Amino acid sequence: MESLFKTVALVGRLATPALGEPLRQLGTLLQRRGVRVLLEAQVASEHGITQFEQVQRQDIGEAADAIVVMGGDGTMLSVARLVAPHNIPLIGINQGRLGFMTDIPLHEMEAIVPRILAGESIPEQRILLDTTIIRGSEEIHQSLAFNDVVFSRGSIGSMIEFEIFIDQQFVYSQRSDGLIVSTPTGSTAYALASGGPILQPTVPAISLVPICPQSLSNRPIVVSDTSEVTFLLTRGQDARVYFDNQSDSELREMDRVIIRRYPNTLTILHPLGYNYYDMLRAKLRWGEKLL
Amino acid sequence: MESLFKTVALVGRLATPALGEPLRQLGTLLQRRGVRVLLEAQVASEHGITQFEQVQRQDIGEAADAIVVMGGDGTMLSVARLVAPHNIPLIGINQGRLGFMTDIPLHEMEAIVPRILAGESIPEQRILLDTTIIRGSEEIHQSLAFNDVVFSRGSIGSMIEFEIFIDQQFVYSQRSDGLIVSTPTGSTAYALASGGPILQPTVPAISLVPICPQSLSNRPIVVSDTSEVTFLLTRGQDARVYFDNQSDSELREMDRVIIRRYPNTLTILHPLGYNYYDMLRAKLRWGEKLL
Amino acid sequence: MESLFKTVALVGRLATPALGEPLRQLGTLLQRRGVRVLLEAQVASEHGITQFEQVQRQDIGEAADAIVVMGGDGTMLSVARLVAPHNIPLIGINQGRLGFMTDIPLHEMEAIVPRILAGESIPEQRILLDTTIIRGSEEIHQSLAFNDVVFSRGSIGSMIEFEIFIDQQFVYSQRSDGLIVSTPTGSTAYALASGGPILQPTVPAISLVPICPQSLSNRPIVVSDTSEVTFLLTRGQDARVYFDNQSDSELREMDRVIIRRYPNTLTILHPLGYNYYDMLRAKLRWGEKLL
Amino acid sequence: MESLFKTVALVGRLATPALGEPLRQLGTLLQRRGVRVLLEAQVASEHGITQFEQVQRQDIGEAADAIVVMGGDGTMLSVARLVAPHNIPLIGINQGRLGFMTDIPLHEMEAIVPRILAGESIPEQRILLDTTIIRGSEEIHQSLAFNDVVFSRGSIGSMIEFEIFIDQQFVYSQRSDGLIVSTPTGSTAYALASGGPILQPTVPAISLVPICPQSLSNRPIVVSDTSEVTFLLTRGQDARVYFDNQSDSELREMDRVIIRRYPNTLTILHPLGYNYYDMLRAKLRWGEKLL
Repeated sequence: MESLFKTVALVGRLATPALGEPLRQLGTLLQRRGVRVLLEAQVASEHGITQFEQVQRQDIGEAADAIVVMGGDGTMLSVARLVAPHNIPLIGINQGRLGFMTDIPLHEMEAIVPRILAGESIPEQRILLDTTIIRGSEEIHQSLAFNDVVFSRGSIGSMIEFEIFIDQQFVYSQRSDGLIVSTPTGSTAYALASGGPILQPTVPAISLVPICPQSLSNRPIVVSDTSEVTFLLTRGQDARVYFDNQSDSELREMDRVIIRRYPNTLTILHPLGYNYYDMLRAKLRWGEKLL
Repeated sequence: MESLFKTVALVGRLATPALGEPLRQLGTLLQRRGVRVLLEAQVASEHGITQFEQVQRQDIGEAADAIVVMGGDGTMLSVARLVAPHNIPLIGINQGRLGFMTDIPLHEMEAIVPRILAGESIPEQRILLDTTIIRGSEEIHQSLAFNDVVFSRGSIGSMIEFEIFIDQQFVYSQRSDGLIVSTPTGSTAYALASGGPILQPTVPAISLVPICPQSLSNRPIVVSDTSEVTFLLTRGQDARVYFDNQSDSELREMDRVIIRRYPNTLTILHPLGYNYYDMLRAKLRWGEKLL
Repeated sequence: MESLFKTVALVGRLATPALGEPLRQLGTLLQRRGVRVLLEAQVASEHGITQFEQVQRQDIGEAADAIVVMGGDGTMLSVARLVAPHNIPLIGINQGRLGFMTDIPLHEMEAIVPRILAGESIPEQRILLDTTIIRGSEEIHQSLAFNDVVFSRGSIGSMIEFEIFIDQQFVYSQRSDGLIVSTPTGSTAYALASGGPILQPTVPAISLVPICPQSLSNRPIVVSDTSEVTFLLTRGQDARVYFDNQSDSELREMDRVIIRRYPNTLTILHPLGYNYYDMLRAKLRWGEKLL
Repeated sequence: MESLFKTVALVGRLATPALGEPLRQLGTLLQRRGVRVLLEAQVASEHGITQFEQVQRQDIGEAADAIVVMGGDGTMLSVARLVAPHNIPLIGINQGRLGFMTDIPLHEMEAIVPRILAGESIPEQRILLDTTIIRGSEEIHQSLAFNDVVFSRGSIGSMIEFEIFIDQQFVYSQRSDGLIVSTPTGSTAYALASGGPILQPTVPAISLVPICPQSLSNRPIVVSDTSEVTFLLTRGQDARVYFDNQSDSELREMDRVIIRRYPNTLTILHPLGYNYYDMLRAKLRWGEKLL
């Protein structure tokens, strides 16, 4: 069973001692099968692993043909944003608790990962969001997000006011704690906690989910992923915009934030037998009778 | 300004005396402009209008090139289901209260309808759902829906239990008052009242919205409109399925109901300047401060 | 450890063969401790138990000083409505699945029930609702409810319209699938599935929870349990009102339904160590991380 | 028509030039009727009004027998917290937009306020919350709230984790954006935007409303206003607690915050004919058909 991918990078959750041994094992296993193994440099240093070539985080997309992510959905998110420009597939291994994206348990990785690399996989394409912040006539920030772009009031405690446009058409003005613009991937994260719908990973759509809106008729809206969403901050002294809750940027009144689907999709390789709904059911405990 | 449509059928809301005069006026106006005007036979009879050719309801799709619907969204729904196989555009006139689909006010119809027929229009494609009920190995019912397919407990008062499959993959079993499977068009109707998201009319998606589910983690799901949704009734003595709340069918335990997107879309012709969000904002009173 | 209650009635869930043996055991145990044991006649007949005095369902309240209910919350509800006029405490034993009211597991009943009867208990007072239906100037129906009074559209599928008054003050007119008027006890049943809040058992309040209201601003309201709630059906061909989902009555347009707190409370005796929130947490799986 | 209150203080919303004239008019009117009029010092200075005795904000409770508040609900809140210890009734005048508590329109105040002061009023008692923050074994902060006590994550963007106890009984641990502990008065403010129920002003209850909880089964809970609610911050680097969104305090991990009903109630004097539900209906636009 030969790997279809010549060079495979291993990335692990940081500050997680328990991952040292599994990273060594998986790297060794892949090397024996003729794969060139790269280990992300910070992880290599944390665990003192020296037997693999090291690769800097920012170079992974350039250097590898596939990436195995060990940790949880948070680690997956950070890698996704990094390698999105490079069309490299990701494989997600969880440390114990099933993740929405990291669906292979650690104790099965030695059986499953080689098969996936050999082509026995179910690839799933997922979209990202590309966000540009415009102040006056200048683009002051640009960022990718795999889960969501979250506009949020700051710590001052008062609601923010903003206007939303879809494809340049005015949709509404809103007074609320904020707004979540979510991909299907992000629809089971913060957007769900805020009352948004679950979007099947492959539905070509983006959801806009208000956070504690003052008007009771403000409901989540789902738009086509070809739509351009514009957020205009009309009032708010301490507002910020967060990307996957991993980076953020301050917003000032009259800043415009433009969100479009990023041209590339990201591919996650799942083992044969993978079923999105099995995972969802396990995570959300559907089918159990609660009352 | 010549009509692009040779034969235009007029349909009005039934049992609505106030529509007699407007139907006469619009028909006469269109005739003067060289359009062949057909009037739906039951409406003609109700109002004693004899000056136009009559057409039976079930023959409209065959006979006309375009249809003007006068009334409200309910009338629009019934015509939509009827003419869906024929690829004929609809134009909706409301009687006073703005409709989600009937967006031309009665007092502006004489100015607007001829322009739309002459091509000055914004066409909007909307999907329908095609539903088949299977009992044992037999197809016992087939129906179209433009808004929604609603599974509902009957009057006995106890919840129903069912399983949902998407593209043959098991999604969940649920105990609830029922389930709404909705098009984007129907997302602002019953599905909204039951907590579902608003779907932009052109997003290629279908939403599944539970009605009072017993499990608190059962949330609305949005799937691609290429998905096949299967509903399997596992328990319920008095369950029914409703199509646009205009026709319905009894369900027995172990009946399977298969819902797919209907191949044709339905075209609604809007006047120039139409903006879906303007309409939505007006209907849902967005932008007003309620608190 | 002597029982404070001379005569104890045993009631079991009907059509449940597995309860025959436990009923025999518990009855025998109590007899040995000098308690006069009554067994509900229908249950006695179902299981062929002849060693205890039998009591007709409708006479239990008169005949017993305390009642042990074996089964689930449904059985508890039916007994509660029956004995509410008599101020007799209930003790609830579940058959395996923890109930909101039946909190003693079958396998612990022999240890726990005698202690409770001897006074080692935490008594909890719970309110009931007393409902009168008025047609014209006539009272046509009267019923008690321990969980909820539910107004609901029938099987015809169209929403009902009604007006609500609290203490004769007009609150709102509503178009919806119905309305749930719930005690704190019922707040974790159907009212919760319909989006209502959880009311702590001892909060002196009643909640009004709309079912799929057409207006997005219709939210659950909590009123004092001294309030008189009036429901006036203004439109609805097939509406019904349900009491604890165990009995129901047809409603006609312009029927008025008046709901007041029933003067008596019902006492449930819990074992020492009982904590409402422990039970709630177990039932609703709080504290678990779902995402 | 003589005033039952000898000394009446006037308080106005700050930084609101339009209130200068109405304050003068009302003060003059009351003086003519023999009332001793006090004007809050900062307002007097802002508008350059010198014809009335001035009173410092913090002395109003001591000095006046009744207070007329001119502005909106925000001004009412700040005065309520100030005078709560003194059992002085408030009368609320709105500037144009109906308030939940400021129900007398400016243009009717000259007719209505003297009548209310003469006893033609409907008094409404409302509760406040008394909050103590405990760090280690020390009380580090104490504050009153009339609407709500809000626990909230800060600007760092990650959820906070906390435990809730009611009357020393553990209720749940929660991961969320925060929690709103609300009086009936506050139930139509932030708690409503976050999905909480409306509490009738006189229901003796407090609601606990989670803000974007991670677990889908976390629902609003309503407890008796005799309950002691304890919030224990178990994780959160940037958490704060807000009192009526007018003052706030930083929280550290393991801080305990204890919330009890304040012993005094606050009395609002409404004009004869006042009906809470009329006001609510106007504010929430109930009875309008939105769809």
